[in-house]
Parts: sequence; structure tokens; C-alpha cells
Amino acid sequence: MATIKVYGHPFSPAARRVLVCLAEKDLDYENITIDFSTGQHKKEPLISINPFGQVLGFEDGDLKLFESRAITRYIAHAYADKGTPLISDDPKKMAIIGLWLEVESQKFDAAVQKLSYEILVKPMKRMAVDEGVIEQGQAELAAVLDVYETRLANSKYLGGEDFSLADLHHIPIIANLLNTKVKAVFESRPCVAPWAATLLARPSWKKATGA
Amino acid sequence: MATIKVYGHPFSPAARRVLVCLAEKDLDYENITIDFSTGQHKKEPLISINPFGQVLGFEDGDLKLFESRAITRYIAHAYADKGTPLISDDPKKMAIIGLWLEVESQKFDAAVQKLSYEILVKPMKRMAVDEGVIEQGQAELAAVLDVYETRLANSKYLGGEDFSLADLHHIPIIANLLNTKVKAVFESRPCVAPWAATLLARPSWKKATGA
Repeated sequence: MATIKVYGHPFSPAARRVLVCLAEKDLDYENITIDFSTGQHKKEPLISINPFGQVLGFEDGDLKLFESRAITRYIAHAYADKGTPLISDDPKKMAIIGLWLEVESQKFDAAVQKLSYEILVKPMKRMAVDEGVIEQGQAELAAVLDVYETRLANSKYLGGEDFSLADLHHIPIIANLLNTKVKAVFESRPCVAPWAATLLARPSWKKATGA
Repeated sequence: MATIKVYGHPFSPAARRVLVCLAEKDLDYENITIDFSTGQHKKEPLISINPFGQVLGFEDGDLKLFESRAITRYIAHAYADKGTPLISDDPKKMAIIGLWLEVESQKFDAAVQKLSYEILVKPMKRMAVDEGVIEQGQAELAAVLDVYETRLANSKYLGGEDFSLADLHHIPIIANLLNTKVKAVFESRPCVAPWAATLLARPSWKKATGA
């Protein structure tokens, strides 16, 4: 019986980040779809798990969590001996993984948040798109990916020679952006492009998205 | 001889976050002041440590890191047996600390970034302040602190009954904001107010700021 429950919307990058992690760890779970159009995320049981009223919640027995990156860190540590190792026991190796986890959260995600809204969410809602915001977002993303390019010229993955949680956190957003014209920002960089392709080719991504 | 080096500006909240952490851990370190007005952060040795050209770098022997939150996580894990325990060995207890670490990074910091710039940096640079931005920032911070208030009504600290890295990460920004009119947003909340006061009373904060 699955004791792990994920409450989320199937298209949410945050929910997908958690589902990819569970797939890498070969863990069973129950996936409860939350329909935010009817305000389910502001009601029980989710509002008791996520006090910010956002569409993501996680339970493992009596443990209740929100924030996708906190959930994946928990999974990676609590189930360290299952599936793909996503972290390291060695403090210095873990420090490098942790560094790139922070870079994703503080730099990559910051650069793509407005961009994703403009290029993905607005067209879906039939709202007018601001090309200036897209231009600026692409420039910010390009600056971040220049740093990634240098890193990936010297290291197979961001956190080191092995795939880690630091790479995993990028997968849902990269998958979305590669379906837009922003893919040029990835594909024009000779080390970033194959890295992104490798991430999206992982069976865990197919499993998490039901592809 | 100190093998730990911190490169940063003494007034930078990110540098202070690292210095408070080192003080809690009773670790010796060398603090190298970086003067960003002369572009020192775009030059060696810092540019080899921090490829984003920002004013924070960290070395522990051959390990080079940037991103304050990655540095403090490394210190907390690598020196787990020294000074104040800032993390937990228990995966579920650590998950709760990790959750509030993410809330600080994703919610609290996001709410205060524009606000800090408007209310602290602009006056220092003799730039005109936009009261509308301050109003909006205060409203966003208030929404985050409402969640903190509920949490702190049931738990002495954010991560549990003991002070942890999750509380520590807030200290430099709270210290800055309590010097402004934004302090009312903290002081009007009966559980948040004493929590904030307890954090600023820690000897590590005095040590980190030379107060």
C-alpha cells in the first residue's frame, strides 16, 4: 500500500519535479489531482498541508510537506538506498550538488519565471503576450546558461559526473521551454543542449508525465 | 590556521548569513572584504569562485562555493558535531527544517527583495523611493508572516523546538527590516515578534556583525 501521496495538478512543474524524483527512486505513490479551477487547493485536505494555498502537497505517513524542492530533498535523503542516488554522503561532493541546487532555485528559476508566464501561461489563457518581457527573459536565461555552459564543459552533470537532484530540478521547466522559441537559447550552447536532451530522455520523465 | 575563507562585503545579507553560521559553529575563518565599488567581485580570486560575478565566495581547503544558502548547508553538514546543531540526522525532522529553508528562499526572500531595495538601498543611493512598491512589498511580507505566525504559535522555531538553519537564514534581512518602518509588520504579530527578537539576540549575530 502506498503511504506516499502527492496532491497536485498534472501540468504543474512543481508537481512534476516531485513525480520525477519518485520515479527515479522507484517509489510507489498515490497521485491526487487537484483542480485549481474549482479552488480545491484552498480547501481540505490540501490547505492543511500547504498553508500558502498553492497546488502542491505531499504526505509520507504522518509527514506533511509542501515546496517541491523540500519534498525532493526529503525523498532523496529518506530513500537514499533506493533507485538512482540523487545526493552524496560525502560532504564536499554534496556541497557541489547543493551549490547547483541553489543556482537552479536562485538564478535559473528566477530567470524563467516571468518568461514561462509570458510564453506559456498567457497564450493558454488567450492573454496578449508582451514580446519585450520575452526578450528580457531570454536575455536573463542566456546569462544563466552561459555559466551552465562553462560548468558543463568541465563536468558531465551540474553536480558532478553523475546525474543528481540538481539536474532533476530543472527537468519540468526545460521540457516546457523546449516547446517554445526559447529552445534556441538552449540549443545554441554546445554543452547545455546535450545536457538538456539527456535530462528529458530519462525514463523517469516519461513515467512522471505518463508519456 | 584558518582554512575557511569568506569573500564578501561586510554589509551584504548573504555574507552575513554565512558569518552567522560560522559563528554558531564556532569555526575560525578568514574574512576577506570585497569592495564592489571598485569591481573587485569581477576580478580574481572571486570571479573563479563565483561565476555570476556577485559579491560572495567561500573556500574550505580545495572546496570553492558561492550562494549563501548552499554554503551554510555545507557548513551545517560538514561540521555537524561542532557548535550549535543546525540540522537533524532524522530524515523527517530534517524534512521539516528543509521545508522552512525552502519557504525562506521561495516565499520570504521573494517578498522582501524588492522591499529591501526600495526601503534600504534606494535611500542609501539617494534615489527616489516609490511608496507604492513599499506598500505592495509590505502586503506580500504580511501574507508570508501570517503563515509564520500560525507556525510559531505551535512551534518554538520554524524547523521545530530548536533553533535551526531555517531560522538562521532569516537573521540578516530581519535585522535590516527592523531598522525601518517595516518593523511594524513583525511587531504586530504576537508569535513572530518574539521569534525575531530571539534570533537577533543570538551571540552569533553580534559576532558576525562585529557589534
